Amino acid sequence: MILSLSPTDTFDRAKMNDLIKRRFFYDISFAIYGGITGQYDFGPMGCDLVDNMLAEWQKHFVIQERMLKVNCSILTSEVVLKASGHVDKFADYMVKDVKTGECFRLDHLIKQHFEKKLSEKKTSQEERETINRKITLLDGMTMEEMDRIVKQYDMKSPLTGNDLSDAMEFNLMFPIYIGPSGNLKGYLRPETAQGIFVNFKRLLEYNQGKLPFACAQVGNAYRNEISPRSGLLRVREFTMAEIEHFCDPDDKTHNKFDQVANTEMMLYSACAQMDGESPRKMTISEAVRGGLVANETLGYYMARIQQYLLKIGINPKKLRFRQHLNNEMAHYACDCWDAECLTSYGWIECVGCADRSAYDLSQHTKGSGVKLCIERPLKEPKMVESFIAVPDKGAIGKAFKKDAKAVQEALAALSNEDAEKMDKALTETGEYDLNGYKLTRAMIPSFKREQKKVHVEEVIPSVIEPSFGIGRVFYSLLEHSFRVREDDDKRTFFSLPAVVAPIKVSVLPLSNKQEFVPFTTKLADALTELNLLVRVDDSTGSIGRRYARTDEIAIPFGVTVDFDTVNNVPHTVTLRERDSTEQVRIPIDDVPLTVKKLADGKIQWKEVTDKWPRFIAQETTK
Amino acid sequence: MILSLSPTDTFDRAKMNDLIKRRFFYDISFAIYGGITGQYDFGPMGCDLVDNMLAEWQKHFVIQERMLKVNCSILTSEVVLKASGHVDKFADYMVKDVKTGECFRLDHLIKQHFEKKLSEKKTSQEERETINRKITLLDGMTMEEMDRIVKQYDMKSPLTGNDLSDAMEFNLMFPIYIGPSGNLKGYLRPETAQGIFVNFKRLLEYNQGKLPFACAQVGNAYRNEISPRSGLLRVREFTMAEIEHFCDPDDKTHNKFDQVANTEMMLYSACAQMDGESPRKMTISEAVRGGLVANETLGYYMARIQQYLLKIGINPKKLRFRQHLNNEMAHYACDCWDAECLTSYGWIECVGCADRSAYDLSQHTKGSGVKLCIERPLKEPKMVESFIAVPDKGAIGKAFKKDAKAVQEALAALSNEDAEKMDKALTETGEYDLNGYKLTRAMIPSFKREQKKVHVEEVIPSVIEPSFGIGRVFYSLLEHSFRVREDDDKRTFFSLPAVVAPIKVSVLPLSNKQEFVPFTTKLADALTELNLLVRVDDSTGSIGRRYARTDEIAIPFGVTVDFDTVNNVPHTVTLRERDSTEQVRIPIDDVPLTVKKLADGKIQWKEVTDKWPRFIAQETTK
Repeated sequence: MILSLSPTDTFDRAKMNDLIKRRFFYDISFAIYGGITGQYDFGPMGCDLVDNMLAEWQKHFVIQERMLKVNCSILTSEVVLKASGHVDKFADYMVKDVKTGECFRLDHLIKQHFEKKLSEKKTSQEERETINRKITLLDGMTMEEMDRIVKQYDMKSPLTGNDLSDAMEFNLMFPIYIGPSGNLKGYLRPETAQGIFVNFKRLLEYNQGKLPFACAQVGNAYRNEISPRSGLLRVREFTMAEIEHFCDPDDKTHNKFDQVANTEMMLYSACAQMDGESPRKMTISEAVRGGLVANETLGYYMARIQQYLLKIGINPKKLRFRQHLNNEMAHYACDCWDAECLTSYGWIECVGCADRSAYDLSQHTKGSGVKLCIERPLKEPKMVESFIAVPDKGAIGKAFKKDAKAVQEALAALSNEDAEKMDKALTETGEYDLNGYKLTRAMIPSFKREQKKVHVEEVIPSVIEPSFGIGRVFYSLLEHSFRVREDDDKRTFFSLPAVVAPIKVSVLPLSNKQEFVPFTTKLADALTELNLLVRVDDSTGSIGRRYARTDEIAIPFGVTVDFDTVNNVPHTVTLRERDSTEQVRIPIDDVPLTVKKLADGKIQWKEVTDKWPRFIAQETTK
Repeated sequence: MILSLSPTDTFDRAKMNDLIKRRFFYDISFAIYGGITGQYDFGPMGCDLVDNMLAEWQKHFVIQERMLKVNCSILTSEVVLKASGHVDKFADYMVKDVKTGECFRLDHLIKQHFEKKLSEKKTSQEERETINRKITLLDGMTMEEMDRIVKQYDMKSPLTGNDLSDAMEFNLMFPIYIGPSGNLKGYLRPETAQGIFVNFKRLLEYNQGKLPFACAQVGNAYRNEISPRSGLLRVREFTMAEIEHFCDPDDKTHNKFDQVANTEMMLYSACAQMDGESPRKMTISEAVRGGLVANETLGYYMARIQQYLLKIGINPKKLRFRQHLNNEMAHYACDCWDAECLTSYGWIECVGCADRSAYDLSQHTKGSGVKLCIERPLKEPKMVESFIAVPDKGAIGKAFKKDAKAVQEALAALSNEDAEKMDKALTETGEYDLNGYKLTRAMIPSFKREQKKVHVEEVIPSVIEPSFGIGRVFYSLLEHSFRVREDDDKRTFFSLPAVVAPIKVSVLPLSNKQEFVPFTTKLADALTELNLLVRVDDSTGSIGRRYARTDEIAIPFGVTVDFDTVNNVPHTVTLRERDSTEQVRIPIDDVPLTVKKLADGKIQWKEVTDKWPRFIAQETTK
């Protein structure tokens, strides 16, 4: 949900986009061929920034929490996405221009129409109130409700003024036909999560059968958006980083919760939203103990998400966690919070964090006939009654041949309830559809009831899912770190933390005199040896102008080789910090390790200015 | 080209595959739903191994060579792949079973048929010779030639014995329809290279207009294989790591060639292959100076590719560089060498390294009308005659509206030759098709000849392309590092170098006694703090059994907390190396940094055994 709250500061989006394009952070794909909306190519700067964000993500989540990791196919067979519910329900509503065929996303069209009405002087106060009420309810409306609004307000195509078609559903997945015969239908995955769920059994084995454990996956996902706008915020191809934390449904405590308990967070509860109140700051411990956040594990991840976002440079004043309203939340979810960042487009959902209960594993258990559950020891053994289908194996083998085994397994996995249903259906209609296999009474001649003493119970784990839209975090980070120098409004730059900055250090000879070359080369090589990405700029142009160029691409530290470097022993250079533009004079041999420590966040700039003498130079781009 | 040379050692593929599956390095995708051939999911071990291989690749190439990097769209519009030649030519030949519709790749079918014939006793010596000659020529045959062979030998479907259809082409790209109207056709990219070429202009600007420079891209590519077999070696979805090195076509020297000049390489020249000779070992310098390898830059990358492969653990005795034969090489390439690894499937192409000349940039210049070239200063200015279309701007504006600018640009970019062609066509037929725009004489009323003094010439850079099939390198690496313990043939493991091993260190308490816990926890946390992936195994089972389990997943170092740890001050633990199974006794506080250095390759195991006392313990899995 994007609320129409404007940021309070004077952010100039056009100015930032100019810098992004000019220094190739990213740009529209296939631009020399006219480009495609909703797709972007990342240039050297954007690419490294994303890679560094993801490397930090790996450290913060996968390594620190000792998570498992998978990398699954993007081409996904239809049966998987049928079970997950995507084939039937992963759709947006749209209308078409009846003459040109142009498609519009229904909720966007309505919102745009209403916003235009609100901006017109002639709209009465009463109308305004009605419209505002409808805008608030838009996210939870059915297609029929929206369709009625379109007709009631006689909305037309905003491009041509032509009539619009009735509303229709449009499934957002890209279909794919696998193999030369084209018989095997699949889709490009719309999220990375399903790959983890279908591998649950192996992952559980890998974790020696124990809960809780978490598994992460980073990779592309695809959604065939109806009319992508808003730059990187709505695209057809994007990178996700998802974690599925599997835990006992009756024990959602987290053994590291104490470590984050005092984290202060800005929480915007569902109640506060409904009552028109503001978000409230509180510790995650207060939120969990007070019952606002459903459980410790969910709260733990919310705190860890916040820590990560702040570490990479998200502005804490422009970050909040918003709880989903009841009508927004999937029916199976217990609780769901979105980490939202404030941008010039309003508050943007960047990370979702949901307790999805047992939904996903239950669906794939049903879909595949393979039990995705754990066995939990009972305190005391108990007697249970099972209602079991007794198949005629010969008949099933004959009917289903190589699929017979799958049918047998699905029969063995039937719940009592489903077995009762099957018995009833076979008696009444003579047929039953089991995962697409048509069973007849001849195949299942009888059912039996059995009493069994059991020592374990089968439990489907709950899933807590933090899900990062990396492109949205990336874009918010750029807005949050975009700066204009106070003394020169043409000098724009990104104040990215060193840990994610694409290039860590620049090496600039004062001029292109030959005598500087050996020093520049040796220093750049020594920095590269420490796996630091270095930018040597030996182009002509004043040193100030070249610093401005390195600032633009967020290089946090800059070294200048000058005449003092050449003439004095020990050889020294200047080292400059981007945000403060402060400089020190430092022996050239101390530079590599100092910059390495700064880049890794092991020391702060203040420690450098405390240790080495300040170097004062006027910085001019003239 | 896969030669049918068997490896000389006694490698047991079934044994390795059992380990790969059991410890979830990778397995077939969507297995609980029956799986899809040609697609694989990577589990925690496979995923980390690939990630570590790619991290090392980034260091070795991108950081060390200061390359640019891009990350481009996988959904690619048709016009791009039309220009690159993929829409028309990226196809394999196949035949269908006329009754079942089953598809077979034509060359594989013929080869399989021939191999069967060779294995039959009744086949005469003369027939054998004919068949062997045909197998050698197979890679270079046209579809018609192969079709004749199928008919001549009366080949049938190997599955059913049914008749086969005539041979047909099958384009290997997956088509995609972008947007809700389905009008915009695209494909999943079949390689990552095109994204770099279409961004050439921006990358050149980013590099301040200077050559040479290189740009890398790592990402997925897709090929709709006709009948994928051979496990990871032929799949529909795979990761590539490609480098495009742009250089002056008249200067293919490399300023760091001296650093690799003495690298010894096993080279299998086209001549040696034709003459039935063996590969020859020589230095890359000899190969370039002698003209066998076309130029320094190509040679430089071949040496760097070898360095990389050896660093991650490829067996030098199972690595060679094979030159493409003339009939194998694309018509535009000057020279092309494949790094091949010997596996149980024969010699496998893992990395290609080609001089593609100006082909790609020329094609996209023609396709887009945007000049992808550099301006090179002439030693002396010269007079050139241009033949220029003089358009009626009004007529063009009226006809093409928002595309008028693109048409004007395409007209301005016309070569003299194309302008002559256009003039002729407009005179003869009144029409000319320019990149899909239909031009008429009214739009181009005249042409003119102009003499101009020029100081620069436009030159299309040459491209040297190292292209890594990451999955194939990964698979070869697994085969090359698979080991069986001499004293126990049930104990199998992977001898991966620490730098790419998924998990760097295990921590094992001697038993699950409570007194070990504080030591285990503290040590694991200290190791994690250094961003080392740690595996704690506190399950029951003898220490030897648990070591065997950590060996299986290639953990290079293992720490055991035992009674001496608890009872003696300073607290010491044992540290074990996987391949030698040697152990030392070392103070617990020295473990984290020592392991960190070992894992980063900063110290070798011998330095550890020199420094700390040997710990002798019988390792038993009983």
